[in-house]
Amino acid sequence: MAKKNKKSTISVGVIGSGSFATAIVKILSGNCKTIHWCVRSEFVKGVIEQRKHNPNYLTTVTFNTRDLSISTDINEVVEACEIIILATPSIYLSDALEKMNCNYSDKLFVSAIKGIIPKHNDIVAHYLRDVFKIGFRNQAVIAGPCHAEEVAMERLSYLTIAAAEDQYAETLKDLFSSSYIKVNTSNDILGNEYSAILKNIYAIGAGMANGLGYGDNFQAVFVSNAIREMKVFLDAIYGELPRDVNESAYLGDLLVTAYSLFSRNRNLGNLIGKGYTVKSAIQSMSMVAEGYYAAKSIYETATEKKMKLPIINAIYNVLYEEKNVEKQFAKLTNKLT
Amino acid sequence: MAKKNKKSTISVGVIGSGSFATAIVKILSGNCKTIHWCVRSEFVKGVIEQRKHNPNYLTTVTFNTRDLSISTDINEVVEACEIIILATPSIYLSDALEKMNCNYSDKLFVSAIKGIIPKHNDIVAHYLRDVFKIGFRNQAVIAGPCHAEEVAMERLSYLTIAAAEDQYAETLKDLFSSSYIKVNTSNDILGNEYSAILKNIYAIGAGMANGLGYGDNFQAVFVSNAIREMKVFLDAIYGELPRDVNESAYLGDLLVTAYSLFSRNRNLGNLIGKGYTVKSAIQSMSMVAEGYYAAKSIYETATEKKMKLPIINAIYNVLYEEKNVEKQFAKLTNKLT
Repeated sequence: MAKKNKKSTISVGVIGSGSFATAIVKILSGNCKTIHWCVRSEFVKGVIEQRKHNPNYLTTVTFNTRDLSISTDINEVVEACEIIILATPSIYLSDALEKMNCNYSDKLFVSAIKGIIPKHNDIVAHYLRDVFKIGFRNQAVIAGPCHAEEVAMERLSYLTIAAAEDQYAETLKDLFSSSYIKVNTSNDILGNEYSAILKNIYAIGAGMANGLGYGDNFQAVFVSNAIREMKVFLDAIYGELPRDVNESAYLGDLLVTAYSLFSRNRNLGNLIGKGYTVKSAIQSMSMVAEGYYAAKSIYETATEKKMKLPIINAIYNVLYEEKNVEKQFAKLTNKLT
Repeated sequence: MAKKNKKSTISVGVIGSGSFATAIVKILSGNCKTIHWCVRSEFVKGVIEQRKHNPNYLTTVTFNTRDLSISTDINEVVEACEIIILATPSIYLSDALEKMNCNYSDKLFVSAIKGIIPKHNDIVAHYLRDVFKIGFRNQAVIAGPCHAEEVAMERLSYLTIAAAEDQYAETLKDLFSSSYIKVNTSNDILGNEYSAILKNIYAIGAGMANGLGYGDNFQAVFVSNAIREMKVFLDAIYGELPRDVNESAYLGDLLVTAYSLFSRNRNLGNLIGKGYTVKSAIQSMSMVAEGYYAAKSIYETATEKKMKLPIINAIYNVLYEEKNVEKQFAKLTNKLT
């Protein structure tokens, strides 16, 4: 990647047209001359070009279309850019990337995705490394806490950008910083990605507790145990870095999701807690909550590495082993402190 | 204190008739034969004895009055008991205790108070030690997270009981444990007391942010910075103990208060954030929020010890230095990460 001289000269592409992708394009549009935006369909492309807003997500955000180069062809976008920001839902990433056949070896891939690739049962960083041979040095991660809806309203939000190379983290910091976005940098790529994934599982658990009728006192205990459990996982998987899990990218992201009434993950858990079967709870949602896939993958990783993660175990048992949610939580309450 | 043979034989007194005192009497009434309850007035005593509930707080909780020995005389209660639980609002503790002229040297004093004694500008543990010569070995602290209203509904809650002596902590654990109360024990008396006080100040700040229009993304960042700042304070004041601030008594208590829409402290901050003057915000509340007094005392302690606590400083500046809340928070946002 070339060293940037001026903000606007770096060529940046965004893959995805969901709410977080749209928020990212909004943020970048203040700092980049042109954003190459790979959207899902000609329909979406057409609406943005003609009506200047995404037809489906953050529809109140208006774009200056002169700043955008919109395409449905990932190769066109990747070829044009030095930095490629991946912002599809995790379940659609492989569909998008597997069409990529251009040369991307010198590009920086930045994941804003918070979930497991279901087909590979693994995190994005590993998927990019194993399937596309994109090493960690050419990767970065954007972590929250950041509801896209608040970005649309320009409410002050903090992002954390993790990259192995400090210069990449700094470049991305400049691209993302604005009056309403402050950026922290980090070298903890895997820790940031895993914590963003784990927090979705804990949000399912917070929803289950709520659906079962546990109150605010318990919710606070649940979250305080969840962040400790997250630390156990992160230290076991990737413990070499000094890492304070109370930083915004870890605890903050957990809080914004576990306490949000709008989180899909929390809502899935809430339905199950209220007595819906897992299948019917999933069917009632327009899109599967990312924590559902994450629970399986994280459970398997934790089991393989012999970690003790009582919260993850309880949630996994309910989601995949047809265990009774009320009983699982009754047992879990004895393991929390 | 005698070693207990049977739960019901330990003589326990509760000082205070507010909501948390009432919740504590409810909890203890399942485990103690008689609870000596020192209430504020003959009226309160009369209503509880005749109607079996507190006239002012947690009125849905019904007591078996055969289990209660109610008095308005603190000496009568202290003389009768081995364990005295202090559960008045912090601003009324000195009024209650300064009437105490019986011999209390062999008693265990347990503070369930989460605030500064305004007249002494200090925490309860220091006040008991300095004014009443009650050493830390004869003290214990009950920490949350625990909204009294949820205890009334018997929603599962976790308490942490801190005592210098393990045997006291275990005795208290037995007295407080029930189907809806789980008890953790700790030796960190001062850390538990200070964190319960600090969280009220941070809840004022969370309210200010909300009143100013900051959103959920910011709130999560604010709380994640607050717990790190709390750790700085606790380590500086009393760093000898190994202490994980992510345990329920620290982080959990902060969460239940900072995210509660019913917290007096959060509400005070919210009014100020919305543009009320500090004076008018305080006047509009039926009772002063404990974090208001705490902010002054903690700020002074921090200044004396040269700690850097940007959140406490900002809140102190607004509450006591007539600084503009919007500007203080605008500056603060640059210090958070």
